Amino acid sequence: MPDRPPFVSFLSDYGRVDEFVGVCHGVMLDVTPDLRIVDITHDIGPFDIRAGALALVRAVQYLPDGVVLAVVDPGVGTDRRCIAVEVDGGFLVGPDNGLLAPAVAMVGGPGRIVALDNPEYQLVAPGATFAGRDIMAPAAAYLASGVSIDALGTPIDASGLAPGLVPLPQEADDGTISGEVLWVDRFGNCQLNIAPEQLVERGVMPGGYVGVTIGGDDRRAHWVPAFADAKPAELALLVDSYGMCALALDQRSAAAELKLRAGRTLTVVALPEERP
Amino acid sequence: MPDRPPFVSFLSDYGRVDEFVGVCHGVMLDVTPDLRIVDITHDIGPFDIRAGALALVRAVQYLPDGVVLAVVDPGVGTDRRCIAVEVDGGFLVGPDNGLLAPAVAMVGGPGRIVALDNPEYQLVAPGATFAGRDIMAPAAAYLASGVSIDALGTPIDASGLAPGLVPLPQEADDGTISGEVLWVDRFGNCQLNIAPEQLVERGVMPGGYVGVTIGGDDRRAHWVPAFADAKPAELALLVDSYGMCALALDQRSAAAELKLRAGRTLTVVALPEERP
Amino acid sequence: MPDRPPFVSFLSDYGRVDEFVGVCHGVMLDVTPDLRIVDITHDIGPFDIRAGALALVRAVQYLPDGVVLAVVDPGVGTDRRCIAVEVDGGFLVGPDNGLLAPAVAMVGGPGRIVALDNPEYQLVAPGATFAGRDIMAPAAAYLASGVSIDALGTPIDASGLAPGLVPLPQEADDGTISGEVLWVDRFGNCQLNIAPEQLVERGVMPGGYVGVTIGGDDRRAHWVPAFADAKPAELALLVDSYGMCALALDQRSAAAELKLRAGRTLTVVALPEERP
Repeated sequence: MPDRPPFVSFLSDYGRVDEFVGVCHGVMLDVTPDLRIVDITHDIGPFDIRAGALALVRAVQYLPDGVVLAVVDPGVGTDRRCIAVEVDGGFLVGPDNGLLAPAVAMVGGPGRIVALDNPEYQLVAPGATFAGRDIMAPAAAYLASGVSIDALGTPIDASGLAPGLVPLPQEADDGTISGEVLWVDRFGNCQLNIAPEQLVERGVMPGGYVGVTIGGDDRRAHWVPAFADAKPAELALLVDSYGMCALALDQRSAAAELKLRAGRTLTVVALPEERP
Repeated sequence: MPDRPPFVSFLSDYGRVDEFVGVCHGVMLDVTPDLRIVDITHDIGPFDIRAGALALVRAVQYLPDGVVLAVVDPGVGTDRRCIAVEVDGGFLVGPDNGLLAPAVAMVGGPGRIVALDNPEYQLVAPGATFAGRDIMAPAAAYLASGVSIDALGTPIDASGLAPGLVPLPQEADDGTISGEVLWVDRFGNCQLNIAPEQLVERGVMPGGYVGVTIGGDDRRAHWVPAFADAKPAELALLVDSYGMCALALDQRSAAAELKLRAGRTLTVVALPEERP
Repeated sequence: MPDRPPFVSFLSDYGRVDEFVGVCHGVMLDVTPDLRIVDITHDIGPFDIRAGALALVRAVQYLPDGVVLAVVDPGVGTDRRCIAVEVDGGFLVGPDNGLLAPAVAMVGGPGRIVALDNPEYQLVAPGATFAGRDIMAPAAAYLASGVSIDALGTPIDASGLAPGLVPLPQEADDGTISGEVLWVDRFGNCQLNIAPEQLVERGVMPGGYVGVTIGGDDRRAHWVPAFADAKPAELALLVDSYGMCALALDQRSAAAELKLRAGRTLTVVALPEERP
């Protein structure tokens, strides 16, 4: 059994058309030649911090111990800081704009935090700083190679970090839950910010039905254990593989049929008596 | 020379926008930290088993010895099995829906086959099982690390597997061959399910011409050794780099001009006398 | 610290939908199992040699020492040669069509050059040669593993290579600079073929203004140090992270608003007196 190599898991909104991702790989491998890089995704919508944060929090528990580098950075060139955060199992590196916060919380909260302001661990750009390439990728690679987080810059208190913006569902007195779509995946499944426990508290059990109202349009959804348990054309509600409620259609896109995308609001209400 | 590392080659319909591919990488590297992963493609059309099977059979002979993980799985959540198949040079892992069958045949047919039903080699999902992440990726990584296929689940007889659906061309008494487009590549080249030997049997030789009928529209194609040997605007028929007949235009998309896509049927007939 | 592994950095116009990239990875890893591959990008537009050459020259200084494999090859199947070029820090491998020339110049010019015509270091195709898979990927992997460039084929003199086509800006007597857009990145930033020194020679200093004429439409651009230093809706000119002038809008696409794409011409003139 060989020694475990150092790992960086990398998420960004760089896309794959430009050479940005490859250049950041090159920069990291120049610092740490035996580094192994896992590309989480680079197709977060440009500047979409929320989508990046949500993808990161879904993925983080499945990533190898080591460093997570996440770059969705509308503030490039402003005085927003680039940071490294110590967590159980490694470090997260990214801009201080809320991108990292939900993942940091998911893995147990922050240890030491530093602003990446030590130029000894940065590249010098021929023009404007490309913070991913010049500051954050080198920091990730140095951390992976064993450089102390203390060496990378000035300590920051956790209370000074930008908060993560996770939309919480609202529970009304009439029993409805106002939530929203967190994520539409490639197959058109729509993850909601509603946990199955919230349905159970309202008397809906697996196998039961809920009413879903989207922009004035009322639907009924059947709580099934898996996609294929829905009847043809029946809207399914299931606990997805991340443990959250999702709307889905078997082998078709629920997002396309219901015209849903991330951020769309909807309300869910128990239909406990109905057994059609 | 270092020891050869363990390899998993990975194909799916997950796309690259969601974090699914990165998460499966993370899961495999957690099991087998020195694993090397080759991404074949992840942009098979959602649920398009046939396209996945064809890409796999084109690629398989060029992949490093080891494990192939292929996931195109419309039946997620049903009772279709996930399987591992022993072959010469390694193992294939995927759903039992025909996706693997042509590649298994290409590399010499199956040895031992098991259903991946041993939970000791699976992850526990917080909700619905994500079979790629929770069952098939771990199985691929364990096989690559040297775990015996027998440990992963219940043996299956090859006769019980779902067959691969490879469309065969039909040869008519009047000399025409009815075939179809197997694959349109990025450059618009259209691979057919017709082998060059079938043309030779009908008296067409390299340098000769065939008639191609697509939806009532008749064209003439020139059998050339390479793209650039066609005259400008001339439809070329060539033996592509996989050994199959393909329709092509030099530096332009034959698919766009002929309105072809995978699955489109056409007929080919020898034009042996014509020398324009 | 482990030994540094061999590296190939890989750029192409293969896209990610077909299995081409994965197959080339497989071929290289079969030759050199401990090879590490950096994917620069594979989404260069089909046959767009200029875009490939520009991406390569932007990336090359950030790639790990070793081999660069670049394939944008409209002449596949013609008698254009595939070549390997020795440079400081490694080798570049690609078609002899100008794709490599700017990157070779960037890293100090060529040493030995060979045409890849030794079949001992090639794969045999079942049909037409797939030059990336059968000739260039194996050559890259053999070079990375330490095979001498002399073994791969016939020496070529540098004077016989196809030149790179880098568009140079024209400076007119009236002080205007006629340039063009080299590259539009994912965020809509438009890199020009104009260096900041050319503006300074005309009396424009950072913080000043230039006039930009695009197809008869006159705009004013503010030379700012970073994206976020522009006023809202103000067109920014900045020295981008590669050291070239670029047109940008803060958090929006300058390309979309100005209808710019790679190759579009424009003129720039100093507005040295204006301080609005």
